[in-house]
Amino acid sequence: MNKYMKKAINEAIKGVNQNHGGPFGAVIVKNGEIVSTAHNQVLKSNDPTSHAEINAIKKASKKLQTFDLSGCDIYTTCMPCPMCMGAIRWANISNIYYGATSEDAQSLGFRDKLFYDEEHQNIRSIDRASCLSVFRLWSEKPNKTIY
Amino acid sequence: MNKYMKKAINEAIKGVNQNHGGPFGAVIVKNGEIVSTAHNQVLKSNDPTSHAEINAIKKASKKLQTFDLSGCDIYTTCMPCPMCMGAIRWANISNIYYGATSEDAQSLGFRDKLFYDEEHQNIRSIDRASCLSVFRLWSEKPNKTIY
Repeated sequence: MNKYMKKAINEAIKGVNQNHGGPFGAVIVKNGEIVSTAHNQVLKSNDPTSHAEINAIKKASKKLQTFDLSGCDIYTTCMPCPMCMGAIRWANISNIYYGATSEDAQSLGFRDKLFYDEEHQNIRSIDRASCLSVFRLWSEKPNKTIY
Repeated sequence: MNKYMKKAINEAIKGVNQNHGGPFGAVIVKNGEIVSTAHNQVLKSNDPTSHAEINAIKKASKKLQTFDLSGCDIYTTCMPCPMCMGAIRWANISNIYYGATSEDAQSLGFRDKLFYDEEHQNIRSIDRASCLSVFRLWSEKPNKTIY
């Protein structure tokens, strides 16, 4: 078995056994070295965003002191949900290795697959012009950092 | 202007002026009361997940002591990116009101739209069976909380 996935699985087991959350663990690796490991803590922290991948990214960013994890790979026990996939993209993580599929997670009652499939029917735009005024504030700001 | 969006915009302005991150603010409302307000802090915290919506959800969950924000609405100055959209779904937020569009964000150099469009070409499955063993551990766990 892949040694990083093994570590991710051990994290997932830890999370389930400690009642921290679902059976999900993740490991971030750079140049063969483990940068961070984490598991799902939605239940422990009452935080719906506390997925293994999000937690691993937060730890890695803190450790490397950057929001740019280019050159890092992530090993995760399950196909990242859309939230985590988005986080992985923002973090510029290079490669994603996952174990179980969204269908596997669905079979446990998790809603990842639904999120991938569903239409956005409860979303609408209001006050766009006012919001764009802040966009202009940003765009006119000198020496800003683009991430 | 919608009063909650006004508040979200003020948060966004605060974030830009304090160099905390991009021009994005969010407000979570339940039964007409503001539960949380937040702005993007990616630059301040070096955390690629520190978007306005994620931060607002974390604050609201902490305040209401639950990962289930059913009955809450979110007002955000920009169409949520895929990460935040996923977080909103996990949190069971009822309605999403946004101002600017992903195209507007793209015009500032943010990559939201790319994320919505792109193929997942750097992702592959490994060690699924081993990962599924943790799924079984979860599935066989009595009295577990599904979220």
